[in-house]
This record gives sequence, structure tokens and C-alpha cells, in this order.
Amino acid sequence: MLRRGVFFWHRDLDLILDDWASGRGLFLYTGRASSLGMHIGHLIPFMLARWFQEKFAVNVYIEITDDEKFLRNPEYTLEETAMWAYDNIFDIIAVGFDPDKTFIFQDTEYIRNIYPLVIKIAKKVNFSEVSATFGLRPSINIGAIFYPAIQLAPTMFEHRRCLIPAGIDQDPYWRLQRDIAGSLGYHKAAQIHSKFLPPLTGPEGKMSSSIPESAVYLSDNPKTVERKVMRHAFSGGQPTVELQRKLGANLEIDVPYQWLYYFLEEDDSKIKRLGEDYASGRILTGEVKQLLVEKLNSFLEQNRDRRENARELVDVFKYNGALAKRM
Amino acid sequence: MLRRGVFFWHRDLDLILDDWASGRGLFLYTGRASSLGMHIGHLIPFMLARWFQEKFAVNVYIEITDDEKFLRNPEYTLEETAMWAYDNIFDIIAVGFDPDKTFIFQDTEYIRNIYPLVIKIAKKVNFSEVSATFGLRPSINIGAIFYPAIQLAPTMFEHRRCLIPAGIDQDPYWRLQRDIAGSLGYHKAAQIHSKFLPPLTGPEGKMSSSIPESAVYLSDNPKTVERKVMRHAFSGGQPTVELQRKLGANLEIDVPYQWLYYFLEEDDSKIKRLGEDYASGRILTGEVKQLLVEKLNSFLEQNRDRRENARELVDVFKYNGALAKRM
Repeated sequence: MLRRGVFFWHRDLDLILDDWASGRGLFLYTGRASSLGMHIGHLIPFMLARWFQEKFAVNVYIEITDDEKFLRNPEYTLEETAMWAYDNIFDIIAVGFDPDKTFIFQDTEYIRNIYPLVIKIAKKVNFSEVSATFGLRPSINIGAIFYPAIQLAPTMFEHRRCLIPAGIDQDPYWRLQRDIAGSLGYHKAAQIHSKFLPPLTGPEGKMSSSIPESAVYLSDNPKTVERKVMRHAFSGGQPTVELQRKLGANLEIDVPYQWLYYFLEEDDSKIKRLGEDYASGRILTGEVKQLLVEKLNSFLEQNRDRRENARELVDVFKYNGALAKRM
Repeated sequence: MLRRGVFFWHRDLDLILDDWASGRGLFLYTGRASSLGMHIGHLIPFMLARWFQEKFAVNVYIEITDDEKFLRNPEYTLEETAMWAYDNIFDIIAVGFDPDKTFIFQDTEYIRNIYPLVIKIAKKVNFSEVSATFGLRPSINIGAIFYPAIQLAPTMFEHRRCLIPAGIDQDPYWRLQRDIAGSLGYHKAAQIHSKFLPPLTGPEGKMSSSIPESAVYLSDNPKTVERKVMRHAFSGGQPTVELQRKLGANLEIDVPYQWLYYFLEEDDSKIKRLGEDYASGRILTGEVKQLLVEKLNSFLEQNRDRRENARELVDVFKYNGALAKRM
């Protein structure tokens, strides 16, 4: 994902690498606003965080912001968003984090331990700043105004530099963090941001849970995956076999190819050959879609297995692992 | 204090009395923004709450808002306001609450249990409302914007009507509470508000910790009390003995008389006689001041004794009493 530009943007990654090389150390932080089911795009920052954890041998803090989801969405109850948090944690654990170097916490529960830090942050940020940073109107509820202080707190869990793998939409939070971190005696957080995996239904925008065919969920069964890909995946290929053989596919807008390129086909030489063959018309959309179905179903099957084991690990990541215990 | 109009204003006290008479019940809530030392004026709402608790045999919830004090005052650290909270709790316990029907909690600690309720409240209140209610500017920090949700939460600790004895300056919070309580399935809170005990130095304004001689602190020793009253208490008497004998004192502006009237001289016939004698010139300012010194020192001595015993009771009121355990 780094080589292929899925993570296309960073801030201070060079300082992170210096800190690592010099032994000053670092830590990782990422998170998730709980939702009814996670789709494969949601896993991307977690997959990178897991990989960094392995390479750097460092702590990862994962915040589940059930409070944010509740406060920012008029239609959801706190009971729903807290229940989703519980469920999302299984999928996150399934990514394969180190149980003794990873702490997963849910805001409505862990607020007990971070509230003093949260209000120290809150005192440094005023309404004008938050409203300019996030484009909030005066009709925004006071919980949503306060919430950024909660998302910033984990960047100050250690007196080392924090690296945050996240979607690019989270950047306003980190700019705010960098404005105030120094005044509280902490490092400015570093970021590495991913593009959004394009929706199955077209190369623009984000996958959306209100358009179920736009996304593949971690809970989708093989039949559903096949139906979604075959019926809804947006193709950059030509409308007829003859034209495809002659003109080839436009890879830039072909979602099945993009998904394979983003992370499902890990082998660089294979994805290169697939791209060349597809762009030149040697292979057809149907074949690429079929490959995507296979890769997706194999990815999801592995995820399902790991998720089953994750149930037993929840207490380890939240309470009993070496890092969780310290927190 | 009720007869003498110290508590001069209420909202829905009639409904509270109906609820009590009919057996529907009620509960009491009051609180305090922690400060370096409490003065005698701070005790007034607690004294009424204790008396109501005895008469009604109901629960009292006492919130110590160390977070508010920190968020609203640029100069204080959270470590200071949390330490003051610890100290203020001794003075509050010394008022004589029922250990099994009273729960004293400090926001930075108890947030763990109330955060879900707090964000449900926060979601119902927007920036425009808070800023209009409290006169906040956009330069206000986001913690202070959020804080009202925390002060409102205890009004929803029971599904009975809540009666709040408090200083009149707290009224904006309760108006906000009454706007949203129904939509969350709770009663509108009832209030009974006290006037502020006038500063020793003059009949206008509030006692202020930045002008030490304006207030008598619970920690003042007898010598200090005598010096403050004799030297700084604002008199409504005449400048000379002759004039005082002839014209008498103006009780309205005489602070020693007001303090005795507010709560230090409990005997109605004695305070009536004192007022008549002083207004008619039969007694002099010095005598009234002397009486105030005696009453204050006897009040403070009792308070000091009860405060000594309070140290052992902190755990009961915060954690181990019957109500504290349930909370």
C-alpha cells in the first residue's frame, strides 16, 4: 500500500523514522467511529498500523469513538453506537495486532481515564478554531463541539512522537493537535493518510452504508460478494468483447482493477501483468471481476476465521494485555 | 432562611410539595465549583439542602465541579482545582448530611459513570443556545461550552422531580435543563434560589476571594474573624455615638446586622429585638459587631469540629454509603 500510493500523503514521517533510527521511539494511534458493520475499506488504516507495529515493534492505541458517532448523527442512539463498537472491535482485532502492545478502548467507557487530559486539551481550543477547522455551524450540538478534544487525547498517551495512519478526512483533527501539542508538553503528531478505496459502483466518492452495493462488508458471504462484484462493480472496460480486444480497459476508472491494486493482489509482478493485459485488451472485464471475487472471498474467509478467535481476545486488548493493563 | 427571604425565589416548589405529599417523592441536588477555601456564604445552599433532606427524608446529590473551575479560569491548573475539591468536600460533609442518603461526587472522577447521560444531554443543546444562555463568545474554550451538559446530568439521576437549592447565578443552567428534560424522559427540575450573603465590606456585590477582607472563610481563626469584622464590616450606623443614639442605624445596608439576619441569629424574637434596638439607636454598631464576632466564631468552631470528623466520612459519602454504593 505504501509502494502503490494508497497511503499517498504524510506529515513528519521523516521525523518518525529519525526517532525510530535514533532509539527515541514512537507510538501508533488510529481509530474508528463505530458503525453497523465494517467494510473492507475501513480496514486499510488498521492494516498499515499492524504492519508498522510489526516493523517498529511499538505500541498501538486504537480509539473506538462511539460517542462521536452518536453525537454527529441525529438518527443514532448511544445504545446502538456502543453496540456497534463492541462488534467493530472483533474486526479490528482480526487484523492481527500484538495483544501485548495494543490497547483498544471505547470512548464511553475509557473516558474515566482520559477526562483530565481531555479537558486540558479542550481548554486550549476555542469555538472559533473548531468551527473554522471542521466547518461547524452554531446549530451544532455542544457534544460535537467538545468531541475533538477526545480524539486528540491519545496523541498524548506517550511522551514520544505519535504516528497516525488514517483516512485523509481526519486531517483537520491533526492540524488542531499540532497547534496545541507543544503548549501541553507533547510532540506534534505525525500522519500518514490513505486515499479512500473507491466505491464498487464507481470511481468517485466514498463507499456508503446507505448504498449497500457500493461496498463489500466484512460480513458479506461469498454469494453476496459475487453478486455485488458481477452486477455492480464499475468497469473501465469496453462495452463489447470486440471493442475491449481492440481498445483495452481504462484502469484509472476500473474499480475491480483498483481494488486489486489497492491491496488485494499483493504480488507486484502479477498486478503489473494484469494491468498491462487488461489495458491492452488481452483480458476482459469478466475475468478481472472473477479474480476480484476470488481474492475478496479468500480475504473475507480469513477475516471470518480470525474474527471468530477475536471474541476470546477482546478482554486482552481492552483490559488484560500488557499495554491495556498499564492504561 | 426561608422565613427571612434568604431563599427569595423558587420555580415549581409547589409541584415538589405536591409530589412529596402524594408520595411520588423527589430528590435534591446541589453542588459547588471547587475553590481554595470556602467562605460562610458558600454554605447557604448546603444548609438548606441538609434541612430539606431531614424534612423530606430524601436523597441529596452533591456535584463538585473541579472541571468547571478549571475550564472557566485561565489561571488555574486541573491539579489545583481537583485538590480544592478534595478539601471542599470536608466542609460540605461538615454541614451534616445523612451519610446513607447523600452522594458527593467530583466530576473528573465520576465522569466515568455519567458520560453516557452527559452526551445524551449534550446532543440536545446547541452552541447558539449555550452561547445565548451564558453569554459565551466564540473565543470560549470548547470544554466550557460542553460543561453545562455535565452540570445538568444530576437533575436526571432519578425519575422523580429534582429540587435544586442554589445561588441565583446558577439559574441559566436550570432554564436549559427545563428546555430539554422532557425530550429525554425526565422531569423539569425545580429550583429554590438564595440571595448572596453581602460582602463584609459593603452591601453590594459578592464576597470575593481576591478581596480577603470581604469574606469570612471557614478556616479563619477567632482573631482573624474579630479583626475582619471590627475593621472591615460595613456599618449602617451613624458616625458618632450621639448621632447613632438620635438617628439609629440603617439596617438595609448594615452588613453585621444582615449576616446575623441571614442565618447567624436563629431566634426570630432576638433578631427582631436587635433590629428594633439598632434601628432606633438604643444600641451601637460596636455592640452589633461584637455579637457578630461571637456568633461567627461559635459557628466556625462547630464547623471546625465537624470538619475534623468529616475526614473519616469522605469514603462513606463518595463510595461506601448506601446511596454512594448504588451510584
